Amino acid sequence: MMKNQLLSKVYQVLEPGPVVLLTTAHKGRANIMTLSWHMMVEFEPPLVACVVSNRNHSFAALRATKECVIAVPGVELAPKALRVGNCSGRNVEKFERFGLTPAPAERVAPPLVAECFANLECKLAGFVNKYGIFILEVVKAWTDPAQRNPKTIHHHGYGRFVVDGEMIRLKSKKG
Amino acid sequence: MMKNQLLSKVYQVLEPGPVVLLTTAHKGRANIMTLSWHMMVEFEPPLVACVVSNRNHSFAALRATKECVIAVPGVELAPKALRVGNCSGRNVEKFERFGLTPAPAERVAPPLVAECFANLECKLAGFVNKYGIFILEVVKAWTDPAQRNPKTIHHHGYGRFVVDGEMIRLKSKKG
Repeated sequence: MMKNQLLSKVYQVLEPGPVVLLTTAHKGRANIMTLSWHMMVEFEPPLVACVVSNRNHSFAALRATKECVIAVPGVELAPKALRVGNCSGRNVEKFERFGLTPAPAERVAPPLVAECFANLECKLAGFVNKYGIFILEVVKAWTDPAQRNPKTIHHHGYGRFVVDGEMIRLKSKKG
Repeated sequence: MMKNQLLSKVYQVLEPGPVVLLTTAHKGRANIMTLSWHMMVEFEPPLVACVVSNRNHSFAALRATKECVIAVPGVELAPKALRVGNCSGRNVEKFERFGLTPAPAERVAPPLVAECFANLECKLAGFVNKYGIFILEVVKAWTDPAQRNPKTIHHHGYGRFVVDGEMIRLKSKKG
């Protein structure tokens, strides 16, 4: 169902700044958090930086297992993404609670999120302790060909999200 | 003309992932580059991470002067933002060439971009050498009240940009 995606194209998914879900697996439990504080750092191999606070339950899992999946939800999942972000894996089984489907990844233990149109399997490549910045290398990327022209959401604070509008094309010399 | 903006609200401008312009001033010359590789790191004082390659002319200016302005263009400026990104300050006076207006900042030497709806005056707070990640503290923020509901652009590669569409509001327990 999910289609392999060129690693050199990963930046096109994350650079526009969508809200993403981050999954971890630790001590026999999978967990999900919602995240907007991420950016590309290198095209290929794709490196992604993200901020996960040590107040997040996912922090310990990511530090210990050095693996995660970044899943990109379309706008249809906005209410679920928000609810995932408004509770903690400390006391909630989030996949079950929010009706999200874990699917096996190929290169890492944390699950893909089957409902998301893109899933990026990541291994920890570095950690900048002072700022809580994780550097992730995307080692495998998947897209769901059934989701054509997915619209992502962009967080503006307090439950407000801007949904992707029209795509404009300008002539560029660069990627 | 530009209105002072609460520093605690800065994340609402950058977190959604817009294409931004970054200005520097070095050796008597102001320069601009276009940038999408940025993310929030802390709410308040607002810390922003961004990747500026040492291949960019702005790299030396930012390292030497430890100051910059992050300016956020609306969709009307998309063609100019692209052209700013497709040439180098080594051999182009970009403000002049692209008809952008430098305006004096209050706390830093690099200029604001008068046409942008938001301008963030930044001082360098850290540098992660291994990944070329600059950590900037926003010390002063401005918005242009004349630009109501500005639509930002989000880079998808090769001159393709998604423009902000509708804003949805969901009930959230958190900022």
